[in-house]
Amino acid sequence: MSNLQKEETQNKKNVPSTKTSKKKKLGQTSWDLNWFTAIITFAVGIIIWFIPAPAGLDIQAWHLFAIFAATIVGLIAKPLPMGAVAITAITMTVITGTLPLRDALSGFSNSTIWMIVMAFFISRGFIKTGLGRRVAFFFVKHFGKKTLGLGYSMAATDLVLSPAMPSTTARAGGVVWPIILSLSRAYGSRPDDGTANKMGAWLHVTEAQCNAITCAMFVTAMAANPLCVQLAQSTVGIDITWGGWAIAALIPGIVSLIVIPLVTYKLCPPEIKETPSAHEFAQKNLDELGSVSNQEKIMIAVFFLILILWIGGTSWGISATTTAFIGLVVLLFTGVLSWDDVKKETGAWNTLIWFAALVMMATQLNTLGFIPWLSNGVAGSISGLPRQPALIILALVYFFSHYLFASATAHVSAMYGAFLAVAVAAGAPAMLAALLLGYISSLYDSLTHYAGGPSPVLFGAGYVSQGKWWTVGLVCGLINLVIWGVIGGAWWKVLGLW
Amino acid sequence: MSNLQKEETQNKKNVPSTKTSKKKKLGQTSWDLNWFTAIITFAVGIIIWFIPAPAGLDIQAWHLFAIFAATIVGLIAKPLPMGAVAITAITMTVITGTLPLRDALSGFSNSTIWMIVMAFFISRGFIKTGLGRRVAFFFVKHFGKKTLGLGYSMAATDLVLSPAMPSTTARAGGVVWPIILSLSRAYGSRPDDGTANKMGAWLHVTEAQCNAITCAMFVTAMAANPLCVQLAQSTVGIDITWGGWAIAALIPGIVSLIVIPLVTYKLCPPEIKETPSAHEFAQKNLDELGSVSNQEKIMIAVFFLILILWIGGTSWGISATTTAFIGLVVLLFTGVLSWDDVKKETGAWNTLIWFAALVMMATQLNTLGFIPWLSNGVAGSISGLPRQPALIILALVYFFSHYLFASATAHVSAMYGAFLAVAVAAGAPAMLAALLLGYISSLYDSLTHYAGGPSPVLFGAGYVSQGKWWTVGLVCGLINLVIWGVIGGAWWKVLGLW
Repeated sequence: MSNLQKEETQNKKNVPSTKTSKKKKLGQTSWDLNWFTAIITFAVGIIIWFIPAPAGLDIQAWHLFAIFAATIVGLIAKPLPMGAVAITAITMTVITGTLPLRDALSGFSNSTIWMIVMAFFISRGFIKTGLGRRVAFFFVKHFGKKTLGLGYSMAATDLVLSPAMPSTTARAGGVVWPIILSLSRAYGSRPDDGTANKMGAWLHVTEAQCNAITCAMFVTAMAANPLCVQLAQSTVGIDITWGGWAIAALIPGIVSLIVIPLVTYKLCPPEIKETPSAHEFAQKNLDELGSVSNQEKIMIAVFFLILILWIGGTSWGISATTTAFIGLVVLLFTGVLSWDDVKKETGAWNTLIWFAALVMMATQLNTLGFIPWLSNGVAGSISGLPRQPALIILALVYFFSHYLFASATAHVSAMYGAFLAVAVAAGAPAMLAALLLGYISSLYDSLTHYAGGPSPVLFGAGYVSQGKWWTVGLVCGLINLVIWGVIGGAWWKVLGLW
Repeated sequence: MSNLQKEETQNKKNVPSTKTSKKKKLGQTSWDLNWFTAIITFAVGIIIWFIPAPAGLDIQAWHLFAIFAATIVGLIAKPLPMGAVAITAITMTVITGTLPLRDALSGFSNSTIWMIVMAFFISRGFIKTGLGRRVAFFFVKHFGKKTLGLGYSMAATDLVLSPAMPSTTARAGGVVWPIILSLSRAYGSRPDDGTANKMGAWLHVTEAQCNAITCAMFVTAMAANPLCVQLAQSTVGIDITWGGWAIAALIPGIVSLIVIPLVTYKLCPPEIKETPSAHEFAQKNLDELGSVSNQEKIMIAVFFLILILWIGGTSWGISATTTAFIGLVVLLFTGVLSWDDVKKETGAWNTLIWFAALVMMATQLNTLGFIPWLSNGVAGSISGLPRQPALIILALVYFFSHYLFASATAHVSAMYGAFLAVAVAAGAPAMLAALLLGYISSLYDSLTHYAGGPSPVLFGAGYVSQGKWWTVGLVCGLINLVIWGVIGGAWWKVLGLW
């Protein structure tokens, strides 16, 4: 056991040092701007702007589309970080006279945005109170006798936290990954001395895959999910509730979470199969955490409160956003979170800005007639196609096009609304299409090592080669598509979605 | 000169150590909640809620007033920090069914709020580039041969930065105060060894007084000024432009800035009157800063750009908010600010939250008929009074009631709208009343050592006793009232405001 303890101590030492180097990086005066991609981004906007508007489309709608297209290019090419691109987009809509200031700022009072912003604040409580770590060690203690069980323990931790932790970086990167690293090192598996495959490689790919699945399971499990909900509302006029999303995802999600670790266990087998000492390792860490603190108890209570309200609130007239506000207020009054924690939760403020800009543009594109014009046009041209193949083709193209994207948000903003509009115009049931494309918006996150969310952290740990990562990503991606398409399809038939 | 250098070095050492202790304080797990004031706050809301609504007033308006009153009590009694009180207020309006979620979140897309939030981001550039320090040393170099000149140099620094630096804590506390401390120590004036009156005491009270004056001079010089603008709009329906506010404040503001240091020089005379070595001290610091960097040049350019657009933009159709967005975008593209700087500017996010809650409630109180009901009622009861005395009495009561407040924001939220509505109902010209009460909302900040903004920092330095601080505050307050009332009154007559 002394070996485990030593490793754990080393790991602890290592984690703060990573933080320090990160801080240094943040502190330095860095010029964010990438000139080359900035020119491309503006060029796209300017070229579209000066192309004459297609017949039947208002010039204002066309100009807004030019700014929107440039924004999407900006989100992908990143001349500046996402939030700065969003601020620039808002500014451009106003100074070009495309939108009045009032409309340009309208996104900031969107209720979906405030649900996700509040969820970001609430999720800080899991980290601050140590509850996230405790959950992970609890699962390791009870299900970690074999290496396979360790993988499932990580998946279970991720799943348990996911409904109230929309920051995947915080969930997979902040809570789960440090424990994966501890476990790997404790069992002598390191990235660079030929021991990666003893355990670390398998744990890393498994968590990356399972995180993508948990992201798909709840509206609040990933920041871009509410964007899908919002786009579904503004594009095809359907309201996806928190509970509706979760129920439809339940069966395929659970099946995926059971199947995928078995698949990665075959594709990327750990050399160590039995881990009898993991129990002791987890117990030691649980002892260090001590008994469950009052703050953790409150955090658990708030977690269940918001879950219950999210699941049943719609029928009691309490919206998902109101629920999130209630959760934060309870955490503030009970001192689990201080106001200072809230102010410093930069991920939330970042999300507020980009989300507001994107939702504002999507809504205005619809109001000004661009989306109806587009979907009518496309629907006319594919009117001969049967509706099921159309949705399947769209879903596959949407899924695999993520090889081109480094963020779910950019991908959803660029394609979700248009693909959904086309699918519905081709005759697919609106709710089915909206949910399917919504789930894919998370599932594709595991395809590559740059796909967004936690993959850069998990890949960046260095346990897995790029070739291996992509192979696992492709195989698991195909299996996920089958599970969500076939088992999910059957489940959605039962639910009456088609 | 070696003495000056030594002191300067010591001071530099001291400043980071203050920061460290602050960080520690922020880092500790603190339970923000004050139970006693929380109970009072909720009790106020509950009692008003259950009082039957007065005749002629909708029950919804009365309930919103109950929540609003509790919020104001919360801002004053601070059971939790301001932002947390604001979040709670928003939540209460929704869960009590008083307002639909859509209305409760409407404040977040208010354009005045985003002007001030953007100005917070922009002002970070003064600190980050060192331009703020350079401006201060420039004035000390050229006008610091006598101690009186040092005081004016500090006032001038504060004035120059004020149009684009709404955080008084950043302006007076972050830029000016460290230099006051350097100068005081360099001249052997320390708070606790009987040397406070050599120089430090005078510099501290003078800066506190002059900061209150500069706060009054521009809409963007203090976070609560835009709140006045917004309340004037929603209460009596007048639009105060950025330029309109500044022009009306120009003459009384300049007179105050000339007179007040002379007054404090009498009330709190520095023992050292001549400071021939200050030139060298400033030069040394300027040498250390080096030549003006490109980032500072850009900051200067952006500063003038936004000033010009703020002054003349209304006639060119560019709103003050759009101007602030443009300023931030330029700073982001030129790398003066990184997106990380923006995300970490907690003062801006804090302002966004409390401002949105207050503006939302003020607007809804008006929409639901509470404000019209209130001002009609009061106007009826004071219909006999001549209009000039009514405004003067209201102004004096508004000014001196600040002895009861620890923040301009709380005071403005509690009284500005109601006092303005009453003044206008009593026959005072709306624009005159709105501006006068707006200026007073800054001028009263110098009355006490807890009045809000930078006074806790400047008083907290320990150079000035409470008795002295209050005496200077009262005398200068009365002189300011005379200057703004008489000279200001004449100037506003010239401008045609009455």
